[in-house]
Amino acid sequence: MGRWEPDARGRLERAAMELYGERGFEQTTVAEIAKRAGLTERTFFRHFADKREVLFSGAASLQQLFVTTLAEAPDTAAPIDAVAAALEAAGALMQEGRDRVLLRQAVIDANAELQERELIKQAFLASSIAEALRRRGVADPAAGLAAEAGMAVFKIAFQRWVGPAEPRDLPDLIRDSLAELKALTAAG
Amino acid sequence: MGRWEPDARGRLERAAMELYGERGFEQTTVAEIAKRAGLTERTFFRHFADKREVLFSGAASLQQLFVTTLAEAPDTAAPIDAVAAALEAAGALMQEGRDRVLLRQAVIDANAELQERELIKQAFLASSIAEALRRRGVADPAAGLAAEAGMAVFKIAFQRWVGPAEPRDLPDLIRDSLAELKALTAAG
Repeated sequence: MGRWEPDARGRLERAAMELYGERGFEQTTVAEIAKRAGLTERTFFRHFADKREVLFSGAASLQQLFVTTLAEAPDTAAPIDAVAAALEAAGALMQEGRDRVLLRQAVIDANAELQERELIKQAFLASSIAEALRRRGVADPAAGLAAEAGMAVFKIAFQRWVGPAEPRDLPDLIRDSLAELKALTAAG
Repeated sequence: MGRWEPDARGRLERAAMELYGERGFEQTTVAEIAKRAGLTERTFFRHFADKREVLFSGAASLQQLFVTTLAEAPDTAAPIDAVAAALEAAGALMQEGRDRVLLRQAVIDANAELQERELIKQAFLASSIAEALRRRGVADPAAGLAAEAGMAVFKIAFQRWVGPAEPRDLPDLIRDSLAELKALTAAG
């Protein structure tokens, strides 16, 4: 990025999300995204491999946040609580960018191919969490189960958060969903 | 199916699985599957939309089994126990067809497109379980959470079952994984 293209990546991202929301993901071209951002297609391809990548480039930082938070949880933290801390950190980040996250979700919900990609990303996140737990010394199957259960909690909290008339923030809903899971498994 | 094609569907399935295992999913054509089964392509397409469908046609009966078992669980069963009963029923069915399930899994593990399709199928199964729980009067978020937690338990049990040197059967591993999840969430 040169000085003549301040925040080119952010501008391209915002332009892409606007266009995906306005006319749909499939109907939007890279040329249009670049034009809306006041940049060239060449600049677009310096930042993103393709127009789909604009929607999924955040996954890497989310994964990094999960892994770091898990690594930094106190040694004494139970696996499920270490996972909960990581989910809440991710939830807080998403809460800050709420409008962007909601717009992104609407774009994904409207396109089967993007939904598949989202499922793959989630499976990859679950693997990363399990791997981070193993590095904390958690054995299998506990590591895999805590990771999958954590993803279940996150998924349900996220669905509530994007749903209608939900006043609570995402970290709050994550805590609430985890408490609900604990109640469900205790009752069984 | 005419009388001159006894168990055409089963023969096509076995032929397809053999060929996918021998030469890979991508390298296998419908013509070859039909030939191996001693049937025509026309017959193949009376039973399956395409060669991918051979691998995923079992999903519908699995989903039906989940939904039926959930509906038939005693009214007094806690949501997580109703889900566990459904998972064990599915696990018993898969245990019976163990060789076929293992071969299918090896084919899927070798192909990214098939893995995506498998993830979609799993997401659909989770939705079906949540919906069946709602019909039992379980409210959200408990219905969604119990369904997702159940899928987590199933996934981990399945991974152990297909892993090396695992002598236990799938229903047993499902019970064990559920107990492990309960211990994990109780400790948190």
